[in-house]
Amino acid sequence: MIYITRRERFNAAHRLFKEEYSDEKNMEVFGKCSNPNWHGHNYELFVTVKGDVDPETGFLVNLKTLSKMIREKVIEKIDHKNINLEVDFMKNKMASTENLAIGIWNQLEKSISGLGITLYSVKIYESENNFVEYFG
Amino acid sequence: MIYITRRERFNAAHRLFKEEYSDEKNMEVFGKCSNPNWHGHNYELFVTVKGDVDPETGFLVNLKTLSKMIREKVIEKIDHKNINLEVDFMKNKMASTENLAIGIWNQLEKSISGLGITLYSVKIYESENNFVEYFG
Amino acid sequence: MIYITRRERFNAAHRLFKEEYSDEKNMEVFGKCSNPNWHGHNYELFVTVKGDVDPETGFLVNLKTLSKMIREKVIEKIDHKNINLEVDFMKNKMASTENLAIGIWNQLEKSISGLGITLYSVKIYESENNFVEYFG
Amino acid sequence: MIYITRRERFNAAHRLFKEEYSDEKNMEVFGKCSNPNWHGHNYELFVTVKGDVDPETGFLVNLKTLSKMIREKVIEKIDHKNINLEVDFMKNKMASTENLAIGIWNQLEKSISGLGITLYSVKIYESENNFVEYFG
Amino acid sequence: MIYITRRERFNAAHRLFKEEYSDEKNMEVFGKCSNPNWHGHNYELFVTVKGDVDPETGFLVNLKTLSKMIREKVIEKIDHKNINLEVDFMKNKMASTENLAIGIWNQLEKSISGLGITLYSVKIYESENNFVEYFG
Amino acid sequence: MIYITRRERFNAAHRLFKEEYSDEKNMEVFGKCSNPNWHGHNYELFVTVKGDVDPETGFLVNLKTLSKMIREKVIEKIDHKNINLEVDFMKNKMASTENLAIGIWNQLEKSISGLGITLYSVKIYESENNFVEYFG
Repeated sequence: MIYITRRERFNAAHRLFKEEYSDEKNMEVFGKCSNPNWHGHNYELFVTVKGDVDPETGFLVNLKTLSKMIREKVIEKIDHKNINLEVDFMKNKMASTENLAIGIWNQLEKSISGLGITLYSVKIYESENNFVEYFG
Repeated sequence: MIYITRRERFNAAHRLFKEEYSDEKNMEVFGKCSNPNWHGHNYELFVTVKGDVDPETGFLVNLKTLSKMIREKVIEKIDHKNINLEVDFMKNKMASTENLAIGIWNQLEKSISGLGITLYSVKIYESENNFVEYFG
Repeated sequence: MIYITRRERFNAAHRLFKEEYSDEKNMEVFGKCSNPNWHGHNYELFVTVKGDVDPETGFLVNLKTLSKMIREKVIEKIDHKNINLEVDFMKNKMASTENLAIGIWNQLEKSISGLGITLYSVKIYESENNFVEYFG
Repeated sequence: MIYITRRERFNAAHRLFKEEYSDEKNMEVFGKCSNPNWHGHNYELFVTVKGDVDPETGFLVNLKTLSKMIREKVIEKIDHKNINLEVDFMKNKMASTENLAIGIWNQLEKSISGLGITLYSVKIYESENNFVEYFG
Repeated sequence: MIYITRRERFNAAHRLFKEEYSDEKNMEVFGKCSNPNWHGHNYELFVTVKGDVDPETGFLVNLKTLSKMIREKVIEKIDHKNINLEVDFMKNKMASTENLAIGIWNQLEKSISGLGITLYSVKIYESENNFVEYFG
Repeated sequence: MIYITRRERFNAAHRLFKEEYSDEKNMEVFGKCSNPNWHGHNYELFVTVKGDVDPETGFLVNLKTLSKMIREKVIEKIDHKNINLEVDFMKNKMASTENLAIGIWNQLEKSISGLGITLYSVKIYESENNFVEYFG
């Protein structure tokens, strides 16, 4: 069993708030992340898959295939987008990094299984000081 | 003459577009950076100042004083904000990294002179692959 | 179950030595880390917690709360301090990175449980080439 | 139980190809990594070991001893070398990062046990975007 | 006058040696970099250009245009290649980082002038500990 | 004319204070950096030299020679040391990063000239947020 990780990056705008909260409540719970005019991040995404090395190629998976899949299922939908307004797999969810990790896991899991390997973890850096990991 | 650099960080949303352009023209010139729903970045700001070392303290400038000034004049105005809509020193300017560097230089130059030192450069990373420097 | 990690940093002096060893023995076992006049490091601390996402906020934990707790319980006690002489939770212990990780775990575990989440790991970089992880 | 990780680096040339494949097939499977004239990388190696802290020294293992062992068993054999042609523990294997991680694990496992600790993982970065982990 | 820098990366094999030197002399002057079986690196290339900001777009230069030019003139010729054997602009030169910086400058200078801006510097990291800069 | 930079690292303890100041004055001017029990840092040192490429070797300078010189003149004197108490070239100076850069310049300038090249700059990172540069 071997583990391989691919890094991809995306830039996006988002906002943390609840419509049913007052502005004061939103500010209290979410701080400046609740700014109605949005803010944004350079997100770093690390997708880790696991499985057995193919003795013929020495590969767990062709990284070009994996990268292309991550780009199609995730990056093209979220890069240079507004996470709250434009990303289908984040519809009706709080645009937190936690939910982003879960959403990206759900986007990828089945397709990665289709490659004969297993999705192990999705890790997202929102800043150099904060990151989230989800293992399904 | 010695040079000292302070790094500060901010997260912001922005959009590159011209109102007088059609959507097609905006997309052609600015690509996905013209997304009307905004996107954003983790910006890294490096402010370099120069001057003589104070023989009494061994300092060019107290870095706490410099950091506090950068926070007041720049970071508090732009962090978790929308650069196009909310940042006074970027009003009526294209929200490009180039203009951001010039805008931040103008915010800082006089106050830094007031500390008896000289602003040497403003450097901004928009991503790990792109950065801009302005020397006045 | 989701995992979130917060990075904090501190700078401190320390020394690795045993009083009951001769200077030669200390040098033999601990090398230049036994220098009686101290040396120091920029330590990077990564605290990972785990638990369930709150469906209301989309958060595992408010990162400002977590950061404030780490600062109160750990950073304020150790930043710009001498680990051997001044840090209460390192009293009578060898000031190794291993013991530091265990000491910080013990400082944080109960308070983090009080937030309704679970401390998962404490990771400390002493340099870009060496780091220690403790999982309790 | 505590975990400690040592980073070492090496630069090497390699090529991904199968002799029994045609040039076209090699290009199709391995892309530009199959270039017959070789290419190369700055590899980063992270070796993680685990065990109990020695109460006398506060160490899991003396990092100089561990580093010296990694250098003797791995770095000296591979640094500034051609992985396909010159590295004994990679003989007759595809020079993929996956096989490199397994090969380095096998080089280190017994010697690390001889230190009274346990090899936990071998992690190799081939580039900032790709890394492989092996846990035995 | 503003300065903008674009980072691109390439992986390549190379060897430092002189045909007219004996193997001993090559080893003495170039050390393990003279290995006849090649070794390689992940090179990081930073291209800095300077000029005036276009008041219409807020850009010094469209970074996509600049990136595409660097890829055509440099990256496609050198990535996953053998610098000594396959790179036209390094023919008959020692494959040192110094010569690489000068060779890349010469590849880029005229084309960048054609964009109405000026090439300011070419900077190449061969490893995290060594880099070279050339200003023409 | 080409510029080459070598990075070296050292860990050291220091303290910023003036004997003639009261403890209160020291705390006011130098903050927690004045702690009488010392604190410390992982310093990163970047030494940049300039000159002409030797057409025979393709080198500005053999980096092993340069690295060895920096280690002898600087690193061996300061690594794992107390800057205030043990470093001869910092005797009777405030142990600020500014003075460190000047002190290291003076340690290196003549020896580097002896190699037929010119010292261009000394740059020191005290933390990821602060660095100092000196150009003589």
